[in-house]
Amino acid sequence: VAQNSLSGPCAIAIDLGGTQIRAAAIDRTGIIHARVAAATPAQAGPDAIIAVMRTLARDVAEEVAENHDVCGFGLASPGPVNTRSRVALGIPTLAGFDHVDLGVLLDQAFGRTVALENDAIAAAIGEWQFGAGRGCRDLVYVTVSTGIGGGVIANGAPLRGCHGMAAHLGHMTLIHGGELCLCGRKGCWEAYASGYALERRSGMTAHAVFDKAAGGDPAAQDMVRNEASLLGAGIVNLLHAFDPERVILGGGLALGFDQLTDQIRATIANDAMPAFRDRRVVRAERIGDSGLLGMAALVFQGHEERMNDRVN
Amino acid sequence: VAQNSLSGPCAIAIDLGGTQIRAAAIDRTGIIHARVAAATPAQAGPDAIIAVMRTLARDVAEEVAENHDVCGFGLASPGPVNTRSRVALGIPTLAGFDHVDLGVLLDQAFGRTVALENDAIAAAIGEWQFGAGRGCRDLVYVTVSTGIGGGVIANGAPLRGCHGMAAHLGHMTLIHGGELCLCGRKGCWEAYASGYALERRSGMTAHAVFDKAAGGDPAAQDMVRNEASLLGAGIVNLLHAFDPERVILGGGLALGFDQLTDQIRATIANDAMPAFRDRRVVRAERIGDSGLLGMAALVFQGHEERMNDRVN
Repeated sequence: VAQNSLSGPCAIAIDLGGTQIRAAAIDRTGIIHARVAAATPAQAGPDAIIAVMRTLARDVAEEVAENHDVCGFGLASPGPVNTRSRVALGIPTLAGFDHVDLGVLLDQAFGRTVALENDAIAAAIGEWQFGAGRGCRDLVYVTVSTGIGGGVIANGAPLRGCHGMAAHLGHMTLIHGGELCLCGRKGCWEAYASGYALERRSGMTAHAVFDKAAGGDPAAQDMVRNEASLLGAGIVNLLHAFDPERVILGGGLALGFDQLTDQIRATIANDAMPAFRDRRVVRAERIGDSGLLGMAALVFQGHEERMNDRVN
Repeated sequence: VAQNSLSGPCAIAIDLGGTQIRAAAIDRTGIIHARVAAATPAQAGPDAIIAVMRTLARDVAEEVAENHDVCGFGLASPGPVNTRSRVALGIPTLAGFDHVDLGVLLDQAFGRTVALENDAIAAAIGEWQFGAGRGCRDLVYVTVSTGIGGGVIANGAPLRGCHGMAAHLGHMTLIHGGELCLCGRKGCWEAYASGYALERRSGMTAHAVFDKAAGGDPAAQDMVRNEASLLGAGIVNLLHAFDPERVILGGGLALGFDQLTDQIRATIANDAMPAFRDRRVVRAERIGDSGLLGMAALVFQGHEERMNDRVN
């Protein structure tokens, strides 16, 4: 049944961040018809957080109620969440999410099955379905902000692994025994190439580094080149591991993509094995919304599977 | 149609190595009914090599002809081969395989479609179907001999990437800017943890290191522990990237698995993110034959698809 975007169903997608919870009503073409947000009560525990999510979901559904039915709810959660068992395994930014049966809590609160995905995998799905990865069968999405996360689409499907926790790309080692990472390990890619690492090296915000570099400051330009080389070094590893058609760079640092891209490309041309040197690195198209969009795609997929099961 | 192993069809699997070409007749249960081998004319070019493969395939088919039909041929090739286009992209160990349309040459020589796979991916499939990975939906296979190669099964299917060249695991960086690898890059896992690296560090063969360590030599035992730590460091990266149920270690160095396993396990327990520390590393069950068995599995799969297409 064809639906137009004015009257078709919407998915309610929720993005649970460390500082903000956002919810949006999104139609099946990826148009966002309404959005709301609230502060995350990060120390208040799962019940309080789920109450905020319910309120936001209700508010955003009401906003679009005149034109759109709601066909389901989906949550992009910070990891690690085992999305096979739907148990949160200890989310570092949120108190009380250690071995919590998040799937059951959500289903009870919303009165139906809620789609649940690790946030970076959700964002990869969002870019794949509605952004810079449309039409790709094999892609790697990397999000670089305070930390580095990622998601992989392989052979036309999200790569989840046995516990749904694949693509912890920021915690692949770039320098064995190297700098201490926020995760407690040493030498992670994230410890060298994240926004946090750039800010620590430069003594200013990533935004300020890009601004100064754009203004012609040679020291800031060196910092940007160095940052791009470190991003490129990790991306080379991802080319060798996943053989993607395209690498999509998202997250806050991707706002400086135009200043990073030449040196990232040079690093790939220099460091990748010859057969992998032609791969494109592109900027995410839906920065900030990729995770919400990915959850909408998963909600629609679940909805269609349920409809099919009722018919057949 | 059920077939017993005495009279069922066999696949003819060929493994093209740098020094030896091997062929085997393998039934659908993974039993090897005959095998032959010949030296690889590594400098003689594709036509000469394909001629040797044809002779070996004919010989091994004749050996089993009384009891088994041949249902197809498959070649495990050293990489890099783009198995989507079936073009060899410059195989370092064989002269004349640079941008050669290997798929077409094989199909012409054998008079039918020949299954073609990168050797380490074939070995991963072999272990998945007939070895240490039976029943797994998500696994990583790592082969450690002179170099390090690999293959990944993700969500119940081989991970191939957009050119069929995924899982070049030995050429993921372990120490950015570190030791020169045989591939010309710096700091690859292979440059630290391969058999070649162990032999360079120890000044003796890997076999001798394991022998001396088993005999109680403390220096050799240190070398084995160090080797296991370096293997473990790379395996931790693979856990974070692929979230596999199990990691399977194959190749020549896996013959020393019993001496390596404790330190590999300790490295994972120490270095992996908590949610990944419970994963098992096991020894390949079909060391030496994993690639042949994987090609047999692919030949049977292709055969069944053709039969289904004829019926439906």
